[in-house]
Amino acid sequence: MLKLYYAPNTCALASHIALEQAGADYETVRIDFARTEQRSPDYLRLNPKGRVPALVTDRGILTETPAILMFVCQSFPQSGLAPLDDPFALAELNAFNSYLCSTVHVAHAHRMRGYRWADEPEAIAAMQKKVPQSVGDCFFLIENEMLRGPWVMGERYSVADMYLFTLAQWMEGDGLDASRFPKVTDHRRRMSSDPVVASVVAAEA
Amino acid sequence: MLKLYYAPNTCALASHIALEQAGADYETVRIDFARTEQRSPDYLRLNPKGRVPALVTDRGILTETPAILMFVCQSFPQSGLAPLDDPFALAELNAFNSYLCSTVHVAHAHRMRGYRWADEPEAIAAMQKKVPQSVGDCFFLIENEMLRGPWVMGERYSVADMYLFTLAQWMEGDGLDASRFPKVTDHRRRMSSDPVVASVVAAEA
Repeated sequence: MLKLYYAPNTCALASHIALEQAGADYETVRIDFARTEQRSPDYLRLNPKGRVPALVTDRGILTETPAILMFVCQSFPQSGLAPLDDPFALAELNAFNSYLCSTVHVAHAHRMRGYRWADEPEAIAAMQKKVPQSVGDCFFLIENEMLRGPWVMGERYSVADMYLFTLAQWMEGDGLDASRFPKVTDHRRRMSSDPVVASVVAAEA
Repeated sequence: MLKLYYAPNTCALASHIALEQAGADYETVRIDFARTEQRSPDYLRLNPKGRVPALVTDRGILTETPAILMFVCQSFPQSGLAPLDDPFALAELNAFNSYLCSTVHVAHAHRMRGYRWADEPEAIAAMQKKVPQSVGDCFFLIENEMLRGPWVMGERYSVADMYLFTLAQWMEGDGLDASRFPKVTDHRRRMSSDPVVASVVAAEA
């Protein structure tokens, strides 16, 4: 059985939704970030990165949201959550997910995890101050160039929708005015009311 | 024909090597970062992100290194550059590439692109100061936990080797002592002497 290590309000939500949507046989283990369990020796043996998500499979442990999402798509192809046999369409989906992990999530991380990239409190405060702009620039690009509608990749619902929904949960916390991003906001609303998504959000609450 | 937009000394090198290794029919277009051509109206029409690489295909434009690498693997399956039909092994490769784009490249970017995340010169200087540590931590993890040897994923050469080689080119510039990372350094040396890699490096020089 698959086992997903997650923490609430993290990007692990995307993998959690994907497993549920795919009908996977899985269980979850909650990591308590308030007690920094992600840095405990036991967890670091499992995932030396000290982050979530981590997915335990019968062949080993997988990390990194884009990789786990594609693993779920390929392991449960009947779920239709990615255009696996179309190299161009799959690359477009992978590009979207890469942008979320390498640019959007990173911009967001400068609000709470600035210590990764500087030590001085003033520098960390300066990073926090720019988050509304840097994350806002990302969502501006998503709103105007990337989110095709009704779903991220167009007519076909995919794991990119789950990943966007996950990171869009942080918009208000990052100081963004959601009304500036009507397509993203509408996407969030439709995702929130999806029964599978709602059940996973409730399970993590 | 495929057309790769690249700039020297950027992560576009990985995609360039992959195209060459796969035997793709492609041409390259060099973007001059010194003249900020990546922010020119013409280039922004092509890639609104204002970054490289961008790969023009007959179906549209692809961005983001992990996505382009997987596109090359899937478009030229005979090249054997990824375990396409093994969901777990492919996820391990995707996880490695995701780590490079979301964590290693990002840590590196705080040396030259700190303005993305803060405005104050002191904060940007503070970021630069921490790069040897933050990038060093990444390569410590790669050295000790991730690079299996002889290739990244073990016995099988893959696009992950091209991507690691590309980012490892920046180690000295980021203030790292390469002798602390003997496995990475040996991997770099073997990659550098590969005829395909050497020809691409020469073409970009």
